[in-house]
Amino acid sequence: MPEYSVVGKPLPRIDGKVKVTGQAVYAADLALPGMLYGKILRSPYAHAKILNIDTRKAEKLPGVRAVVTGRDFPGIPFGHMPFTRDQLPLAMDKVRHVGEAVAAVAAIDEDIAEEALDLIEVAYEELPAVFTAEEALKEGAPLVHDRKDGNMLFKANYHWGDVEKGFAQSDYIREERFQTHRATAGFIEPHAVLASADASGRITLQASKQSPYITWRHFCRAMDLPLSKVRIINPYVGGGFSGKHEPFDLDFAAARLSQKTQRPVKIVLNQDEVISFYKQRQHKKSLMKIGAKKDGTLMAVDCKVLAEGGAYANQTAFELWIFCNYTNFPYRLPNLKFEAIRAYTNNIPSGTIYGHGGLAGRYVYESMLSIVADDLGIDQLEFRLKNALRQGDTTAHGQAVDFVTVDQALKQVAEGIQWEEHKANRKPYQGVGFSSVIHSPGTRMGGHHSSTSLVKVVEDGTISLITGCTELGQGCDTILAQIAAEVLGLQLDDVSVATEDSDGAVLEAGMFGGRGTPIGGVSMLKAAEDARMQIAELAAEELQTAPENLEFRDRGIYIKGKDERAMSFQDAARLAYYKKGIPVYGRGYYHIPDVEVHDLYGGGGGRSAKGWASAAHAAKVEVDPETGHVKILKSVGAVDCGQPLNPLLLAGQEEGSMAFAYGLALYEDTKIDEKGRPLIRSLTDYKLPTAAEGIDHTSIHIINPSPYGAFGAKSGGEIFSLLGAVTIANAVKDAIGVRIMDIPLTPEKILKALKEKKDKEAA
Amino acid sequence: MPEYSVVGKPLPRIDGKVKVTGQAVYAADLALPGMLYGKILRSPYAHAKILNIDTRKAEKLPGVRAVVTGRDFPGIPFGHMPFTRDQLPLAMDKVRHVGEAVAAVAAIDEDIAEEALDLIEVAYEELPAVFTAEEALKEGAPLVHDRKDGNMLFKANYHWGDVEKGFAQSDYIREERFQTHRATAGFIEPHAVLASADASGRITLQASKQSPYITWRHFCRAMDLPLSKVRIINPYVGGGFSGKHEPFDLDFAAARLSQKTQRPVKIVLNQDEVISFYKQRQHKKSLMKIGAKKDGTLMAVDCKVLAEGGAYANQTAFELWIFCNYTNFPYRLPNLKFEAIRAYTNNIPSGTIYGHGGLAGRYVYESMLSIVADDLGIDQLEFRLKNALRQGDTTAHGQAVDFVTVDQALKQVAEGIQWEEHKANRKPYQGVGFSSVIHSPGTRMGGHHSSTSLVKVVEDGTISLITGCTELGQGCDTILAQIAAEVLGLQLDDVSVATEDSDGAVLEAGMFGGRGTPIGGVSMLKAAEDARMQIAELAAEELQTAPENLEFRDRGIYIKGKDERAMSFQDAARLAYYKKGIPVYGRGYYHIPDVEVHDLYGGGGGRSAKGWASAAHAAKVEVDPETGHVKILKSVGAVDCGQPLNPLLLAGQEEGSMAFAYGLALYEDTKIDEKGRPLIRSLTDYKLPTAAEGIDHTSIHIINPSPYGAFGAKSGGEIFSLLGAVTIANAVKDAIGVRIMDIPLTPEKILKALKEKKDKEAA
Repeated sequence: MPEYSVVGKPLPRIDGKVKVTGQAVYAADLALPGMLYGKILRSPYAHAKILNIDTRKAEKLPGVRAVVTGRDFPGIPFGHMPFTRDQLPLAMDKVRHVGEAVAAVAAIDEDIAEEALDLIEVAYEELPAVFTAEEALKEGAPLVHDRKDGNMLFKANYHWGDVEKGFAQSDYIREERFQTHRATAGFIEPHAVLASADASGRITLQASKQSPYITWRHFCRAMDLPLSKVRIINPYVGGGFSGKHEPFDLDFAAARLSQKTQRPVKIVLNQDEVISFYKQRQHKKSLMKIGAKKDGTLMAVDCKVLAEGGAYANQTAFELWIFCNYTNFPYRLPNLKFEAIRAYTNNIPSGTIYGHGGLAGRYVYESMLSIVADDLGIDQLEFRLKNALRQGDTTAHGQAVDFVTVDQALKQVAEGIQWEEHKANRKPYQGVGFSSVIHSPGTRMGGHHSSTSLVKVVEDGTISLITGCTELGQGCDTILAQIAAEVLGLQLDDVSVATEDSDGAVLEAGMFGGRGTPIGGVSMLKAAEDARMQIAELAAEELQTAPENLEFRDRGIYIKGKDERAMSFQDAARLAYYKKGIPVYGRGYYHIPDVEVHDLYGGGGGRSAKGWASAAHAAKVEVDPETGHVKILKSVGAVDCGQPLNPLLLAGQEEGSMAFAYGLALYEDTKIDEKGRPLIRSLTDYKLPTAAEGIDHTSIHIINPSPYGAFGAKSGGEIFSLLGAVTIANAVKDAIGVRIMDIPLTPEKILKALKEKKDKEAA
Repeated sequence: MPEYSVVGKPLPRIDGKVKVTGQAVYAADLALPGMLYGKILRSPYAHAKILNIDTRKAEKLPGVRAVVTGRDFPGIPFGHMPFTRDQLPLAMDKVRHVGEAVAAVAAIDEDIAEEALDLIEVAYEELPAVFTAEEALKEGAPLVHDRKDGNMLFKANYHWGDVEKGFAQSDYIREERFQTHRATAGFIEPHAVLASADASGRITLQASKQSPYITWRHFCRAMDLPLSKVRIINPYVGGGFSGKHEPFDLDFAAARLSQKTQRPVKIVLNQDEVISFYKQRQHKKSLMKIGAKKDGTLMAVDCKVLAEGGAYANQTAFELWIFCNYTNFPYRLPNLKFEAIRAYTNNIPSGTIYGHGGLAGRYVYESMLSIVADDLGIDQLEFRLKNALRQGDTTAHGQAVDFVTVDQALKQVAEGIQWEEHKANRKPYQGVGFSSVIHSPGTRMGGHHSSTSLVKVVEDGTISLITGCTELGQGCDTILAQIAAEVLGLQLDDVSVATEDSDGAVLEAGMFGGRGTPIGGVSMLKAAEDARMQIAELAAEELQTAPENLEFRDRGIYIKGKDERAMSFQDAARLAYYKKGIPVYGRGYYHIPDVEVHDLYGGGGGRSAKGWASAAHAAKVEVDPETGHVKILKSVGAVDCGQPLNPLLLAGQEEGSMAFAYGLALYEDTKIDEKGRPLIRSLTDYKLPTAAEGIDHTSIHIINPSPYGAFGAKSGGEIFSLLGAVTIANAVKDAIGVRIMDIPLTPEKILKALKEKKDKEAA
């Protein structure tokens, strides 16, 4: 194992101090001279025609500077793929869900803007609405969109191997239904934007976006603007969890209001609006049929999914592809069939949320595997180890996986959770659950999929990084700084990370799927290497040696084999700028090599990037039979994300993922009334786990460097979000002896299950 | 002459619309959450010991967040050269001029900050002060600084050739005394800064600076911080005229107040403060002795200068070197002796102001030449043409000059002003004056002297420029955009210029001496060429040809010799990003080639950059004998700045320079009372020319491309500021028959001169 001086160390995050002191600037903190405040008027109906919007009274209110409606936009829908471009900046002819934006106001203060909303008169004609996938797909159901496939947005039909043959060869077949629920992304910082249009025709958008690139493209499409007429400056982001990829009504409204008034316009939502009306996890009903040999060898999986994703497509079709992947990862399976339908309804639109697709896939499959193991009388751990993918295996859908260490991870979490002791010495209402997964380090998608970094050497021997990666709390600024510092023999304190700005940086495709380190990290590595090479050439000339004889460490340049420093890095920087007149900019770019673009919607194979991360999770829970409350006694995660670049940050992400999964497994849910109106509208009612839960979690890092990543790093961030929920579901089953098919495992459901079990035992 | 499609066109400036609509953001417009407002307490004394500063009452005023004094800084003086580092952020032990900052307050609003200033109790012990160079240099004069040379900051003593021999060979010798006066820089936007220190130890400085690099270095030195702990973001600057190179008290005060409070602190001065207490042009008394042959051949110049530059050095020593240069440019002269002394006094500090040194040099020399021509009975034009430097000549101080066209320029302005007709048909109180000059396209100075540019190709086929040049109204953003657009076959509308930010850009050494186009322009040219090469390689592969077969024009890529477009530039950009995954960043840097660094203070030769610009100016004035008022009837300028990249912007700079010179020649002046207190303290009393003056100016462009500049460009901005004042002085002499040796040529002086002339004629 190579010795690193910055990489691999548990260093505190470089943005830590400004964040804990409250100094970090988020979108809502921004201000510009002459700035106006915007507010959004929302539909009270789930489905209605907009007959007329009369904004005259609102416009006349003193302090109001402009009002916009859907008619102020070009009517060009945006979305990720041609067939998912179904959304307009603000509703135009009809509204399709409660809370959909129909108008927006800019005024000199927030109170006046709020007051003006009440003066906008919207004439609606209410339409019949649909709220479940089943209703929506019925013949003659009210149409959410006017499309030839009615309310069916997308149908997936994938088949690898021959499931019929697989079932025929099975000794054992079982079929079960599962449900995974709607939930919000749960970020701390609500959506916020400051748009500033100017007389040159350019708009600067400073918004809370985890994927400003996606926002940029969608925004420009729907505004009918070339990319260059929009500048994206991304402030710090207070969490995204895949809830902040795309532009929302507020971004469009602020921009158009700013264009109309020629003044900057800021719109900041509150958490109630976010929880009530913005992107939720897709609701999915799954029917899984599985076949296995008596010895536990998995033979076939047939999975059917019915997905209810609300009024607009977003990335919900892509989610079903991911779901499919995760109905076989990380276990060997020769035959897989997967069918899924995504229905439009008049609910809040769904889309990407942390663990997108994978979480539900793992939930269904790891639940099913636990059932099979129990049915076949095979130990849960042994059963998983038997089927786990090994190095060089190919998944059911033809994806070659490399660098997998699922078996190691499973063994380590079993040891950590004391599986043998648990089995030997079972205590009432205590249970242990397992799950495991592999995760791809980024995929190629539409738009650009490469990463570009620049390293600017400053004359004082420090460096400044220009990156298109977004710091949304995950720590990418720190990781990139560690990579660049290591390459140049510097310390973390020698590195600044520039504000993400589309005028200077090539924005990353987005911060999703754990792309930051494996993709952004490699381009930063290359940029730092390029800078090192430039400095080495100048220093070598001065030191009368060859550049390849030089080593960079301890803020200095050394001639190989000599202990004495030949030149400080600072002197080399001064040499470049002052003596040679040569400024140093290292430039690096990276795109995923040797990987085909996914044929996402055609049922094809495609491959994700190389250098897979592996993880396993085990948790021990105790169920209170009186209250139905589940307490997590212990949680152990093992992850092989190659070389962990910063074990402290990695542990932070793991613990965050755990808390996230805990919330999904036990608490979070949404509810609507008969008119599609959300019943849970604030954090008072929407329960999220907090630090008070105090999960006892242990992180184990398996260090198995990948040649594709910077210093051997793979993807480590999102992986546990895929596992936590099903681990807990499996543990609860182990604790109470019955399985609840639908998360969240609320006290009500648990008490009901315990009662039914008791009744059955009594019967 | 090559045909260009963007370069050389009179295109409107790209920042024009946002500026005329008031949307452009200047430092005073900036705001950050939690921002405090700072105010500065100034010394009422020109020279006094600071015995004590009691800030307790001010600190207790509700709303005050912090107070700082000189004691809050490390006591490290800043300045350009080691021997000119004489200034502290705020005064520490004594004050050396009226208005020197002694303390600063940060409060929640401006009124409270202002009120707090009154509560700061400063105990002074007043010291005897000196206000003229003569007083200052007297034996036993009060010392401004405790230095071994007393009040003599610097003594220049340059001698080339042999002036004694030159005078011996002369048929004619004359000696005259001249005075050039103190004046303010006259920018519209007062000094302003927003400093934001954060818990990570970093300070972001957003200030109105025309040379943020100089500010950065001086600031970091005096704050004892590495460069990387200070980030410079430069907003638009509302004019600089060399008055905004360095950090001032407000920059230091805002930064330290921000560090103390951990909140952003903004300090915005008003024009009264700027006019009263900030950098003024150096006052200079010159004694020039000149020798010539009867035929007008110049033989020798001996020039002695006594400069009064106030309490701190700034760049006033360097100014004397420039002054020296311009006592022979642009005429042949075999022997030159130059002696100068810069004295410290207790006046407002002097420093760089537009035309720094050169203006005074030209004033003295072109005045003297007019006197010589009159004395020898040689036509003013003929006399200048006879002596004008020609291509391949070397100046008196050994500077080889290339690309000079002074003779052409002189002939053209003479024609434009109708010199022959004027002479043939003289009208009472009307006069014509001439002057000419050559100007170097940038020099190398301390710190880095190169220029770095980046061109980022955006996926929509547009480009974004990253430059360290500062847009201060001179139009550099537009010029750089034209250069990059021309190289890549794009239009001006396809170019964005990123905000100047030290985290991304390598800041230029500074915007002075007309460096922007000749230095920054070349690095931008190279960056665009680099981007073109990268795109050409990708496109050539696609088009199955060689990159060198491709031409870039009309937003497209053409195979040489074919009229049909092979690929649009946009498609090439998409090819790079989407298909190849290769983002395109062009990188260019430039440093002045084959040029020695000036031995500025040792009397050595040194050379400036190559590719000299030439200019001549002629003006016709009419003097009102009743009021003494001078009206400029007509002004004609001819400039050879190589290829003018944008004739509209060039004409704008010329007209600005004219107005500037007009003000200096006729109106602007400063006055102090017996205690060194400024008597002219606002724009009400300080007269600047405005558009109402309505000068009838004609610009003539001599197109004589230089191989050193982008598309043949040389330096064109500052050149007329060197000429206008002396042209008018010469014209006034021509009009009234007597010469006034000291500008400004106020009505009082003119009436007095007319009266003296009349009295003499009567006698």
